[in-house]
Amino acid sequence: MFKIPDHQVAGHQARDGLLGPLIDDSGRFYKPLQNDERGSKEVSFYTSFSSNPRIPDHIHKFFPVFYGTQVLEASDGSGLHPHLVLEDLVSSCLSPCIMDVKIGSRTWYPEASEAYIERCFKKDRETSSLELGFRLSGIQIYESKELGYWKRGRKVVQKLSADEVRQVLRKFVSSNSSGKSDLSPDCAFASMVYGGSSGILAQLLELKAWFEDQTIFHLNSCSVLLVYEKELALKGEFSGAKAKLIDFAHVVEGKGIIDHNFLGGLCSLIKFISEILTSPDECEKKTSLQDYEKNELPSDNGAL
Amino acid sequence: MFKIPDHQVAGHQARDGLLGPLIDDSGRFYKPLQNDERGSKEVSFYTSFSSNPRIPDHIHKFFPVFYGTQVLEASDGSGLHPHLVLEDLVSSCLSPCIMDVKIGSRTWYPEASEAYIERCFKKDRETSSLELGFRLSGIQIYESKELGYWKRGRKVVQKLSADEVRQVLRKFVSSNSSGKSDLSPDCAFASMVYGGSSGILAQLLELKAWFEDQTIFHLNSCSVLLVYEKELALKGEFSGAKAKLIDFAHVVEGKGIIDHNFLGGLCSLIKFISEILTSPDECEKKTSLQDYEKNELPSDNGAL
Repeated sequence: MFKIPDHQVAGHQARDGLLGPLIDDSGRFYKPLQNDERGSKEVSFYTSFSSNPRIPDHIHKFFPVFYGTQVLEASDGSGLHPHLVLEDLVSSCLSPCIMDVKIGSRTWYPEASEAYIERCFKKDRETSSLELGFRLSGIQIYESKELGYWKRGRKVVQKLSADEVRQVLRKFVSSNSSGKSDLSPDCAFASMVYGGSSGILAQLLELKAWFEDQTIFHLNSCSVLLVYEKELALKGEFSGAKAKLIDFAHVVEGKGIIDHNFLGGLCSLIKFISEILTSPDECEKKTSLQDYEKNELPSDNGAL
Repeated sequence: MFKIPDHQVAGHQARDGLLGPLIDDSGRFYKPLQNDERGSKEVSFYTSFSSNPRIPDHIHKFFPVFYGTQVLEASDGSGLHPHLVLEDLVSSCLSPCIMDVKIGSRTWYPEASEAYIERCFKKDRETSSLELGFRLSGIQIYESKELGYWKRGRKVVQKLSADEVRQVLRKFVSSNSSGKSDLSPDCAFASMVYGGSSGILAQLLELKAWFEDQTIFHLNSCSVLLVYEKELALKGEFSGAKAKLIDFAHVVEGKGIIDHNFLGGLCSLIKFISEILTSPDECEKKTSLQDYEKNELPSDNGAL
């Protein structure tokens, strides 16, 4: 009944006998509760969020549906373990392109332990978080039935420069995004995936408007997951592009103050994406960058 | 010809024989260049800003006019010293209410020295910067000809809690703001000063729209100065409410990335101010807070 997700780009993974999330055929995603307070904090967040009357209706679509918690056999064979039961965000996808973007120039927060603050402070400076206001945590781009997916993990993408992030955001919506391609990304699906009244940019702007106002939660170290169906995009059909928030193990109460750290980072991501829409020809001009990336972008497996 | 400004609420002051800014009768403000690189960085910023064709016309009004630099006798009697020559933002004011708000949850930046980063990191956590995304650096409220000004300096206001900041922002636009008053702030001038199409909120929103887009400068450790004429407000005339940016000794190049730290903090300040406009009756309800403030808000001179 339970199986290992095919399309997970970041976070703990249930491979090689480790503890990680599982899915089932009914479209549910089972995320093992972390043993320390992170697990209980994430349960508290989902419980509070799903029943909070101050969350506007139109905001719920940005969060995975929460079905409660369930004890089940852990993926690492260690026995019964409590899991969050969530909507599987890619259960209906056959060829999903997915990007995990951790939002915020700062992943720590005053309520955390000094050890955690020190660790995050260092990491935010070493990765692109401090500079960009966000960092990539993982990406997969569907290429074709034959080639499968181009995937890059956290270690590879979290330290990208601004120019490299621009390149990856272009590659994410391109038809010639094969790792082996010598071409610069053509941004063929930019207007379909990022643009339009229901595209990712419009969704992020809707989210931004809420973050300018909401003072309920501070979403520390939380990610925006960007997803679309590449096969549908290739056919010119609606790609189902969506932005979803995930990972709430470090959420704290807003106490009447907006989450200015999340909001600033979100606005930075919005700016990067809107530049792709307003300067589509940049994709052509940036051949030199593409060359740069081919040579310099480190690869998970040593081959692009 | 040169004299010590009457209405300076933050920063180095030319009193007691110290080095500080001077003004003249022509409406100019002479700010001594700091000897270290901060002085030259501020000159660079003003020079670059005033001649940069990428700054939209309507944005220039948020910055003091820059007239160049001039060597003149320093206020501390130490001899000739180079000064920035700027517009005196309160030269035409007879009874200005002024608030200096340092924007950003983080005042340090990657290019700074480790010693500076460590100092700022500590201070941002000790003051309200980290929590609120900004901290007050000084305030003066005109009360009346007899009572003069209610003033609070940096040390008193930089650590205020969210509730105390709310109270101060209300007091700033109230007719009964006398320090001796037992009344909670009536917010009598809130709609005139903060509200309206030319009020401070509208100005801050215009500034925010620019910060969502501009990737030229990162305004680290910069302040928004809020100013209006209390006597005019008392007469029901246009109060000349304005928001101006000052202090650019730590500006760095944006390098194609928005200033997400400034933007986040600005949005937080905007939220605080907009709440006063949308909940004017809060002023009435918060008597308990006023009581709290009377007892708890530390005073510069030991008497409220």
